[in-house]
Amino acid sequence: MPNPTACLLIIGNEVLSGRTRDANLQFLATRLGDMGIPLREVRVIPDVPETIIGTVNEVRAKFDHVFTTGGIGPTHDDITSECVAAAFGVPWMVHEETRALMAEDYARRDPPVEFNAARLRMATLPQGATPIRCAMTTAPGFSMGNVHVMAGVPRIMQSMFEALAPSLAGGVPVVSATVHALGVYEGNIAEALAAVQARFPALDVGSYPFYRSHGPQGFTGGGVALVAKGVSQEQVEAAAAAITEMLESMGATPIQGEPPPA
Amino acid sequence: MPNPTACLLIIGNEVLSGRTRDANLQFLATRLGDMGIPLREVRVIPDVPETIIGTVNEVRAKFDHVFTTGGIGPTHDDITSECVAAAFGVPWMVHEETRALMAEDYARRDPPVEFNAARLRMATLPQGATPIRCAMTTAPGFSMGNVHVMAGVPRIMQSMFEALAPSLAGGVPVVSATVHALGVYEGNIAEALAAVQARFPALDVGSYPFYRSHGPQGFTGGGVALVAKGVSQEQVEAAAAAITEMLESMGATPIQGEPPPA
Repeated sequence: MPNPTACLLIIGNEVLSGRTRDANLQFLATRLGDMGIPLREVRVIPDVPETIIGTVNEVRAKFDHVFTTGGIGPTHDDITSECVAAAFGVPWMVHEETRALMAEDYARRDPPVEFNAARLRMATLPQGATPIRCAMTTAPGFSMGNVHVMAGVPRIMQSMFEALAPSLAGGVPVVSATVHALGVYEGNIAEALAAVQARFPALDVGSYPFYRSHGPQGFTGGGVALVAKGVSQEQVEAAAAAITEMLESMGATPIQGEPPPA
Repeated sequence: MPNPTACLLIIGNEVLSGRTRDANLQFLATRLGDMGIPLREVRVIPDVPETIIGTVNEVRAKFDHVFTTGGIGPTHDDITSECVAAAFGVPWMVHEETRALMAEDYARRDPPVEFNAARLRMATLPQGATPIRCAMTTAPGFSMGNVHVMAGVPRIMQSMFEALAPSLAGGVPVVSATVHALGVYEGNIAEALAAVQARFPALDVGSYPFYRSHGPQGFTGGGVALVAKGVSQEQVEAAAAAITEMLESMGATPIQGEPPPA
């Protein structure tokens, strides 16, 4: 059975304007790959209702899981939750259990936090959604069908994801092996590398040039990182061995593993 | 006349797998906003021909400009150029002027670089494309219609973008003003902030919570950054003044401008 697939929607004007550098993509890409739910597409979209609704409906039909980050706070530009309700065609309603948990939390603070209309929005969920509760806040994320709605603030998003993760049916973990070579240019190895890719059609073989100056060991110069990736550890290892052999036959000195030589 | 719109396609398995953290989105978002060509959507897609072709055709019809990064090197996984040719339904052909420039460059190197079949791929462009030549490399990016194809390596992408930028018809620059307030929680200001947004419907008013620990001035704690953004400097300044007044009326101490208190 093929692995389930995932799509990430990063919702927020602040990422599109360059104000905020997204920090969630790489975390989720890595964790989902480890769980065998590889990320197949990411979209960054603005806080515009019709864009959010349309995109959610497009991608939830196309991928096994959709993860969203951003737009679930108390302010007027936090509209992800009501847009997901609209996308599913269900009412957006106060979730009583969540309201009670938040009320208890706010009353316990010193000084107590006012549970006003803005904060009540964070207890309002699409009808039928399952809250994602985490240690960082009583204002929850939620899952609605295959759409998993999380906060944009990285430490809260990560806490929500770890709370959600055990409930996701994973696949075969995606594994990879990397071989680095210094002083090797992509243009010189392209043909031989394509032959390795052809020998391992079930894997992704990728080539990523790098340049380091004044690293800890004083290395300055360029090279390539060659990566074999897939769900078969055995094939990944065999491909890494073939890449190593290819580099050695060209007189280069391959270096196995991450991180690249600094 | 409304500003032209832009979409960015980040093409590459390495970003989707978490191996590489994208560094191009924020650069392009900022530069394009300054030029009045705001970024309206970003997609990160894999090195899969039908995905690249389909996505290019979808977004080039939807946005005034499409920028792509990644997939124009010499290796087998560099397929952006031939996919753009397929999207436009034109042949993918050796571009003679580019071939000659690259041949001259490679011959001049010490030792000379072999102009092999892999490197010739980088001189192969969709028929009718205009090369984007930059100081970093003789292997060009290119514009095909409203699709601007650039390298994925940030310093090369930036060099290509600056070479391309003067030829793009910009719009009215997007400007913004930011007001920070320490010890202020979104839930307490949401209603008053929504009233500011309502007073300035042509602007985007955004709220971004932050948390700093042990900054240079020893500040530890949370707060909000409130941002007014749009094409009218006058309105942006008026909205920032309204936000400042709102914060002062609540007893907070607003701090104008970037960067946030560290």
